[in-house]
Amino acid sequence: MRVAILGFGLIGGSLARALSVAADHESWSVGAWSPTGRGTRQAVADGVVELAAASAAEALEGRELVVLAAPPTATLTLIERLGDGLNVALDPGAVITDVASTKGAIVSAARERGLRFVGGHPMAGRDTAGYVAATADLFAGRPWVVVPTEPDDQAAIVAVETLAVAAGARPVRMEPTEHDAAVAAISHLPLVVAAALAESIATGGDWPSARRLAASGWRDMTRLARGDVAMGSGIAATNAPAIAARLHRFRTVLDAWLAELERPGGPDETALADRLAAARDALGDPP
Amino acid sequence: MRVAILGFGLIGGSLARALSVAADHESWSVGAWSPTGRGTRQAVADGVVELAAASAAEALEGRELVVLAAPPTATLTLIERLGDGLNVALDPGAVITDVASTKGAIVSAARERGLRFVGGHPMAGRDTAGYVAATADLFAGRPWVVVPTEPDDQAAIVAVETLAVAAGARPVRMEPTEHDAAVAAISHLPLVVAAALAESIATGGDWPSARRLAASGWRDMTRLARGDVAMGSGIAATNAPAIAARLHRFRTVLDAWLAELERPGGPDETALADRLAAARDALGDPP
Repeated sequence: MRVAILGFGLIGGSLARALSVAADHESWSVGAWSPTGRGTRQAVADGVVELAAASAAEALEGRELVVLAAPPTATLTLIERLGDGLNVALDPGAVITDVASTKGAIVSAARERGLRFVGGHPMAGRDTAGYVAATADLFAGRPWVVVPTEPDDQAAIVAVETLAVAAGARPVRMEPTEHDAAVAAISHLPLVVAAALAESIATGGDWPSARRLAASGWRDMTRLARGDVAMGSGIAATNAPAIAARLHRFRTVLDAWLAELERPGGPDETALADRLAAARDALGDPP
Repeated sequence: MRVAILGFGLIGGSLARALSVAADHESWSVGAWSPTGRGTRQAVADGVVELAAASAAEALEGRELVVLAAPPTATLTLIERLGDGLNVALDPGAVITDVASTKGAIVSAARERGLRFVGGHPMAGRDTAGYVAATADLFAGRPWVVVPTEPDDQAAIVAVETLAVAAGARPVRMEPTEHDAAVAAISHLPLVVAAALAESIATGGDWPSARRLAASGWRDMTRLARGDVAMGSGIAATNAPAIAARLHRFRTVLDAWLAELERPGGPDETALADRLAAARDALGDPP
């Protein structure tokens, strides 16, 4: 399968690395393009991709599968370009997919422009960005959400699932709205909560005193707020309604906590224990 | 130094293990008591303590330093007993300390009962509980907050700081209110937030779908909600005003996020990026 990867950071780079060491690695040939070209040239030197294209159009030539591996808003821009001009470089029949964290807006844009598009979202990441942080095992055993735009085009869907499997992931088919609600729950709301926790605590006058005592709990609860800012704002901007819906519900739960903590005469410790036990039981085993 | 440890879970057990391998381990002799006696008997078999006392009174006999190593509310109960009857077993001049996560209520109770008390709080923990999870290096390099009740009693303060140093920790002196505000910020509010996140997401009808996609972000943001329920409810009950104050501020920040996510016409991605960048910068390096 001849693959183009447009955008070449952690995800694009890790995908290229995974394909280069896949059991069927001889059946994959990869050309890559990124705006700076730094990662792609290094990947050629590393023997991870065959071509560091000088332009997106050059990367597309003769490719059967095109992976848009940019942040959400840059992915939308690439979809616009593929619907308007850049598509002349595209083979008729080439399948386009992406790796962005939100799917509703992206799938709609691709459908509007008549692209042969199957949305994708590998549920994998690291705190560090860029091709320098890319690893061949980033997707190993992880879910890779596949979001068809045209359910009858099984060949396109299977092409993307084949890519996910070659990268070591487990394809999971979902509708765009189901995907966006799910990631708002387990990924995007946690990001907003981590950032809000950092804002509410680490900007206060008593932060220098509190900070001396910070340990693993604080580190874990704010890790997502240390991530890539452009990625985070792109996620929040493109999945805002689903995140806002989760945030409203989260606030309602916090209000119940406040009511218990401020109960006249002091909190009911048994009620607090019951809440904590119910929360723990609902979580089940960690992922 | 002859030490009694009352309560023998993760913290008490780890303290005993740390003292048993300290550079000056020959100068420490430890007797321990717990309500069940399981951990203390095992610790005698392990050569970690000298005595598994059959009662709290037996554990206290001839000890110079008494460590209350129980959850917050059980620590308050032990302080009541030490002020009323159990104190006859106590040597005159023995120093009492504790390891509980909140200090205001505990220091007040000890002062009311006229105990020679210095509050303590080692900033260390694990997800697993009990003596079976105890390790000698749990406190290594960690802050150990020391909260004097009687600033002129330097001998008592230094005795507790000597214990902390022998366990490998770094003593940090604080006032009770400063301590409680600091741990509400970096430990207790994060616990409530993790539990509220679990409640608001993992009890919803679409949890089975979302759960399939959960990854390290979700795992980290809910880890504190998987911890010991009695410990968590005791913390929340004994530090409720400080936690509630932090929670109000956190809600205000969340409201600003909601306003941005629900801005008419969609969120301003640049404003979101600015918020995220400010939060990240305020955090500084992870602890």
